[in-house]
Amino acid sequence: MHDRTDTTGHGHELWPADRLETARAATADAGLDALLLSPGAGLRYLTGYDAKPLERLTCLVLPVDGDPFLLVPALEKPVAQVSPAGGLGIEITGWNETEDPYAVVAARLPSRIARIGVDNHMWAEQTVAFRTALPGVRQELAGAVLNGLRMRKTPQEAAALRRAGAAIDRVHDRMGAWLRAGRTEREVGRDIADAIITEGHARADFVIVGSGPNGASPHHELSDRVILPGEPVVVDIGGTTHEGYCSDSTRTYVVGEPSEEFRRLYEVLLRAQSAQTHAVRPGITAEQLDAVGRDIITDAGYGEYFIHRTGHGIGLESHEEPYIVAGSRLALEPGMTFSIEPGIYLPDRYGARIEDILLCTEDGGERLNRSRRDLVVLP
Amino acid sequence: MHDRTDTTGHGHELWPADRLETARAATADAGLDALLLSPGAGLRYLTGYDAKPLERLTCLVLPVDGDPFLLVPALEKPVAQVSPAGGLGIEITGWNETEDPYAVVAARLPSRIARIGVDNHMWAEQTVAFRTALPGVRQELAGAVLNGLRMRKTPQEAAALRRAGAAIDRVHDRMGAWLRAGRTEREVGRDIADAIITEGHARADFVIVGSGPNGASPHHELSDRVILPGEPVVVDIGGTTHEGYCSDSTRTYVVGEPSEEFRRLYEVLLRAQSAQTHAVRPGITAEQLDAVGRDIITDAGYGEYFIHRTGHGIGLESHEEPYIVAGSRLALEPGMTFSIEPGIYLPDRYGARIEDILLCTEDGGERLNRSRRDLVVLP
Repeated sequence: MHDRTDTTGHGHELWPADRLETARAATADAGLDALLLSPGAGLRYLTGYDAKPLERLTCLVLPVDGDPFLLVPALEKPVAQVSPAGGLGIEITGWNETEDPYAVVAARLPSRIARIGVDNHMWAEQTVAFRTALPGVRQELAGAVLNGLRMRKTPQEAAALRRAGAAIDRVHDRMGAWLRAGRTEREVGRDIADAIITEGHARADFVIVGSGPNGASPHHELSDRVILPGEPVVVDIGGTTHEGYCSDSTRTYVVGEPSEEFRRLYEVLLRAQSAQTHAVRPGITAEQLDAVGRDIITDAGYGEYFIHRTGHGIGLESHEEPYIVAGSRLALEPGMTFSIEPGIYLPDRYGARIEDILLCTEDGGERLNRSRRDLVVLP
Repeated sequence: MHDRTDTTGHGHELWPADRLETARAATADAGLDALLLSPGAGLRYLTGYDAKPLERLTCLVLPVDGDPFLLVPALEKPVAQVSPAGGLGIEITGWNETEDPYAVVAARLPSRIARIGVDNHMWAEQTVAFRTALPGVRQELAGAVLNGLRMRKTPQEAAALRRAGAAIDRVHDRMGAWLRAGRTEREVGRDIADAIITEGHARADFVIVGSGPNGASPHHELSDRVILPGEPVVVDIGGTTHEGYCSDSTRTYVVGEPSEEFRRLYEVLLRAQSAQTHAVRPGITAEQLDAVGRDIITDAGYGEYFIHRTGHGIGLESHEEPYIVAGSRLALEPGMTFSIEPGIYLPDRYGARIEDILLCTEDGGERLNRSRRDLVVLP
């Protein structure tokens, strides 16, 4: 496990060789006998393998007692071997079309296991198959072990998120080239999606262009609605870089002169987002940070229109822990990365949201997004 | 449930109003008390709602006794309401950031339930949360109810798959514009991905360009390898249309004059694929259909190099039932749609695969892909 080499040409420092051992120890501490990880962020975090979720089982088996191994469909073995997982020094085993991969896993696990942690995103058809293959074994969530590790980014991970932030900033910086009255949200969205790729992502994960009343629905994506002069437009975009780390940034633009009322609303929102950003520091709890912005927005009379939490963690997933939400007493720690994205949504009229990714540092917060935050009025 | 209107402007005939009732009856027949469906093909099949998988629970609850309802994060409610689900006449309920959505579902289910069918792709963190919210309730798979329904396409679904097939055919028909010696797989792949969108898909699901030795790994995707003159290149591409149905077609090209050996191999493969295509008819089993091609390839001496099943079903998912694989005695029926994609892979040298989507009709099979299948030699 210590003669690891990176065969992909990038990012090897992102998958340190001791991570499997750290996870094994944490698994034991959690009272679990093994982790079973299916394709997704947990598997990638531990091995660097960006496996696709398929109906054929791919599973990293990490027992507390015994060696870890990666079971993949025989078809996928060449792909797994050239991934960073191929340099980990762990066994990569291919299973054939007519084998039962769940039985293969069960046969190789110690017979006395009682509790396993399954990947938080493992499909039910796989957990049910493991229930059959491992009767009497209690299934818990691997997230209980991994989320705490993943939440605290290494300096290398923070740097990867900084690069992702810079990439999405470059897309926002070019918005004036695409966002104009007379175009549809979908036309603008297609240009943005192309730019997300060309500015340094492996894929575009989401493109929200919410013009006028569509901006009042925070998760509206794209429509054939034509953008009208003077309308606010919420643009919330993100992608995943080739290193596997996610970007996510929202800016609200106005296409032509906005109303005075919208300017006032935006000023309140900007003040809230700025206050929250400056409140980031080790020790503040998620709910306290949420309240910093919510109080400002509520005092200005818009409280009922800020209808979602302040933010979400980000890393190998767009949304992961920590969630910045009322009711969470989780205290921030250096290395945590999350969005600060308050919004105000006036139904049937318009919405506004400002979102940056923040890194909690030893003595405050570092913004990983730097495109301009004042109200951008496009011609 | 019968005053359904389509608010998206397309595809309403794809989501017939009686489908929820059909599924409810099938749930009862299967001895289940309710289905719990998370975002994905099952939810879309029953409601037309193309929900995103998120950490916040979205769940269609379909009890045998009582009315179905769709529980969504409050943020997503406007999006759900303008989807076809909004015209179904079922309740759409939003839950707020600080509520426990699993408790909301549990409180609304009849108290005497014993067995539920959870979505085959529901995340483990959700099934575990339902285990806590519904203690003592046995979780089975909703697929036991839905897969049989989804496998037998309606004429409207077959027509949607025909349109998807024509869209991907148009991409293959333009391949000469992009696939040339001297370009990298990734450069070619980006052009293909763009064309998948412009030719009529909502998204590109996968783009495989396997040149030379990379073609010998069936699930290789893209690399920075430069394509060399005379090399075979496996191009396996697919996307999802705006109607939600998937395309998937593979052609193997040669960039410049191929070797005589490759021509012979390709001729064997084409003969196998053609024989399988013409063997499609109601009553033939999946394993018989697999054997039709495998026998031809084996007789020609390439048996050990055909390392995967013949095909997979396709519909709202790229891979779904029926699987055309050794060991499956499932008999084909009219309305089933699946790929026929034999391949021959010579390690470290090259591979070849030919893939069409087939519709089983009353008296045979209909190819949903029609781009040329003979060996295309590009300049």
